[in-house]
Amino acid sequence: MPQKPSIPKGTRDFSPAEVTKRNYIINTIKKHFETFGFQPIETPSFENSDTLLGKYGEEGDRLIFKILNSGDFISKVDDVTYSSKNSSSLAPKISEKALRYDLTVPFARYVVMHQNEIDFPFKRYQIQPVWRADRPQKGRFREFYQCDADVVGANSLLQEVEFVRLYDSVFTDLGLKGTTININNRKVLSGIAEVIGAKHLLVDFTVALDKLDKIGAEKVKAEMLEKGLSEGAIDKAEPLFAMSGTASEQLDQLKRLLVGSEVGMRGIAELEEIIEMVNILGLQSAQLQLDVTLARGLNYYTGAIFEVEAPEGVDIGSIGGGGRYDDLTGIFGLKDVSGVGISFGLDRIYLVLEELGLFPDDLDTQLDVLCLNFGKNEQNAALKLVATLRKHELRVDLYPTDTKVQKQFKYADKRGVPYVILLGAKELSEGVFVVKNMKTGHQESFSLDNPSQFVHKIG
Amino acid sequence: MPQKPSIPKGTRDFSPAEVTKRNYIINTIKKHFETFGFQPIETPSFENSDTLLGKYGEEGDRLIFKILNSGDFISKVDDVTYSSKNSSSLAPKISEKALRYDLTVPFARYVVMHQNEIDFPFKRYQIQPVWRADRPQKGRFREFYQCDADVVGANSLLQEVEFVRLYDSVFTDLGLKGTTININNRKVLSGIAEVIGAKHLLVDFTVALDKLDKIGAEKVKAEMLEKGLSEGAIDKAEPLFAMSGTASEQLDQLKRLLVGSEVGMRGIAELEEIIEMVNILGLQSAQLQLDVTLARGLNYYTGAIFEVEAPEGVDIGSIGGGGRYDDLTGIFGLKDVSGVGISFGLDRIYLVLEELGLFPDDLDTQLDVLCLNFGKNEQNAALKLVATLRKHELRVDLYPTDTKVQKQFKYADKRGVPYVILLGAKELSEGVFVVKNMKTGHQESFSLDNPSQFVHKIG
Repeated sequence: MPQKPSIPKGTRDFSPAEVTKRNYIINTIKKHFETFGFQPIETPSFENSDTLLGKYGEEGDRLIFKILNSGDFISKVDDVTYSSKNSSSLAPKISEKALRYDLTVPFARYVVMHQNEIDFPFKRYQIQPVWRADRPQKGRFREFYQCDADVVGANSLLQEVEFVRLYDSVFTDLGLKGTTININNRKVLSGIAEVIGAKHLLVDFTVALDKLDKIGAEKVKAEMLEKGLSEGAIDKAEPLFAMSGTASEQLDQLKRLLVGSEVGMRGIAELEEIIEMVNILGLQSAQLQLDVTLARGLNYYTGAIFEVEAPEGVDIGSIGGGGRYDDLTGIFGLKDVSGVGISFGLDRIYLVLEELGLFPDDLDTQLDVLCLNFGKNEQNAALKLVATLRKHELRVDLYPTDTKVQKQFKYADKRGVPYVILLGAKELSEGVFVVKNMKTGHQESFSLDNPSQFVHKIG
Repeated sequence: MPQKPSIPKGTRDFSPAEVTKRNYIINTIKKHFETFGFQPIETPSFENSDTLLGKYGEEGDRLIFKILNSGDFISKVDDVTYSSKNSSSLAPKISEKALRYDLTVPFARYVVMHQNEIDFPFKRYQIQPVWRADRPQKGRFREFYQCDADVVGANSLLQEVEFVRLYDSVFTDLGLKGTTININNRKVLSGIAEVIGAKHLLVDFTVALDKLDKIGAEKVKAEMLEKGLSEGAIDKAEPLFAMSGTASEQLDQLKRLLVGSEVGMRGIAELEEIIEMVNILGLQSAQLQLDVTLARGLNYYTGAIFEVEAPEGVDIGSIGGGGRYDDLTGIFGLKDVSGVGISFGLDRIYLVLEELGLFPDDLDTQLDVLCLNFGKNEQNAALKLVATLRKHELRVDLYPTDTKVQKQFKYADKRGVPYVILLGAKELSEGVFVVKNMKTGHQESFSLDNPSQFVHKIG
């Protein structure tokens, strides 16, 4: 019995049409990464386990895919460990490598290992798959691409301004107009926790606050209470629940709240400077919006944080995010290197472009010309013609056998080929080839001696 | 104590310069794959273990990286298996997924799973990493890219001809002239084994024969004897050890040897047809050469086989290979689908281009223009200029801080930036920016109102 094949849950095959659309997005992002001065690096798919474990919290550790040691892996397990039959104590004895969980930790590892070859500030981009043993669901996969750009070794807020412009450039180029780039600053959140007397509950406080636009003020307050914030603290935070007006009006409200917090006031100053620079320069199609409730999950952020929303009407969550982290490489022994970076969510951007019909039409065409096959006698002339057209970078194929012309046309139809070439005995004797435009049905002859006339015609 | 970071043996970090060179090769291969009518697909990095295991022989199974099940993996192991403490019986109970070992088996799985969406003949290409737990050594890695193109559902020998031309096109475009495309046919090898009475020892016979140019005729004969071939059989095979002359002369010698073998004569007829067609059409820079001793390791080949050698003087082994396999999808339940394909060896091609100095010079440039930073007052004008230049697809960066000009120039030097822009207070007041050509030292002014003058100048 042959196997009925399947693929692991949470993974995907990509058809030619899907690869082409994904590459369209990736190549657009790449182009702007490069014009903005970022350089590509690549890191291995798997890292030593101790590079990854402990960097993403307990939940993260659970979601990391571990690779079984090769060979007689079990013989290296001592009897005591083995007799416990306990997965957590056994795992590190039979697995020393793990698939990368994101691109940020491997990047930090890269910077530390290669610090002597790198000219700082170092602007790198990286577009590679990552793996997470998450429960698969709509839009969430166990293998997916991350598209990251980061700068390390540059403290200036110019970087934050550039990242806002980078988002704007990419989304404008993809035709995705009307995105909102939400910005906040971790220092502001720290400051708020400080002034309301909940410094020790910063994480619980920000996690709850982050849900404001999803569940509303009352439920957020209830969650804060439950997590141990006092009623008094929540009262002091009241202005946050009703922030309104322009960015500068909101910043004024924040200043009144944070006047007693040094870190909070620094956060406000940073936000003011970034927003002002962005406003002076202007954006092409995105808008920058202050969102004091924006927290983002990852603990390593220390300054500005970003999250990009798709245009109104598309309900898909964030299509990008990032921020500044002041000590990422510290875990690997390189202190005081500030980093800031953003990420593009390829899968979600794909869904948005699909939903809004923004993929260019010509992506559907995988083959420009199909040359029909009329058998041995005509085949060599056809192959020569095909070679010439390919040199003009047309995507051209010769049908593999001289089966019925009708069947060959049917294949051309299914593949959506715009032009079909007929080069039979009659054409060959006249030194021409006939091109049929499959959309209009129009046919035209060209000389075999000068195929580039056809190329220019359709070019 | 911070960790001292490292990466698993047999894996690699790629620096910006290396990624750029690798992408140059990949993009060249891709371009020709597409002009030859191949379409891209992608498959998941890991497959269900039973898709991969048993497809590459015992040695292959050992080299496949297995992924540990998530969660409490050990609780699902029954006590009998567990008490055996045996790696081979334990592995399938704690691991259900494995990293792909090549792109061919996943492709066969893809074709079977998607057979109803595919229009046959289906020409697909796939450029993705694969993983093997091989002992790492020079030029052999545990993670490496394969670049494959295959056609399924086309029996005509036109495909073989096209693949020879594809190799020729790619290597010519890479500037790698003088490659040799060796061709043989598995049917010829079967025929020889048949006529010398060693049909049951086909594999041992071909494995030994394959070593002829490495170890010489005497040692090959000794190996054949050792593997159980009779002296009589080896005597009959004598003509193989001294084949010489043109392809057609060699084919004549082969015909005399194989006259009694139907399969052997079919192999010769196939070779003749392919070689004749290739000769009529001509190649650009490669040469096609018959090599009767070429066997290639993989068992699934049934017709033509290819292997490409780097130009003479570069000792690196084969830089590409492939062949026809008549029943690859059979293992997954789809019978009678013929396939033929080739692969490009990215890592070895990289080494050859490096050794021969064939990478284009402009690949070294990662940034076209660095705009120096003169501080807050000039920064906005600089950012506007930078944005305009980026729209012309130049790779441009603004130095992040207004540190000493000397330090900024030093950074430009290290990065190998060809043009540096100076836009200080004086320039700003005059409405110009100054461009310094870093190679010649020449400086020139351009109007801030018309930066495209500069773009045209360097374009």
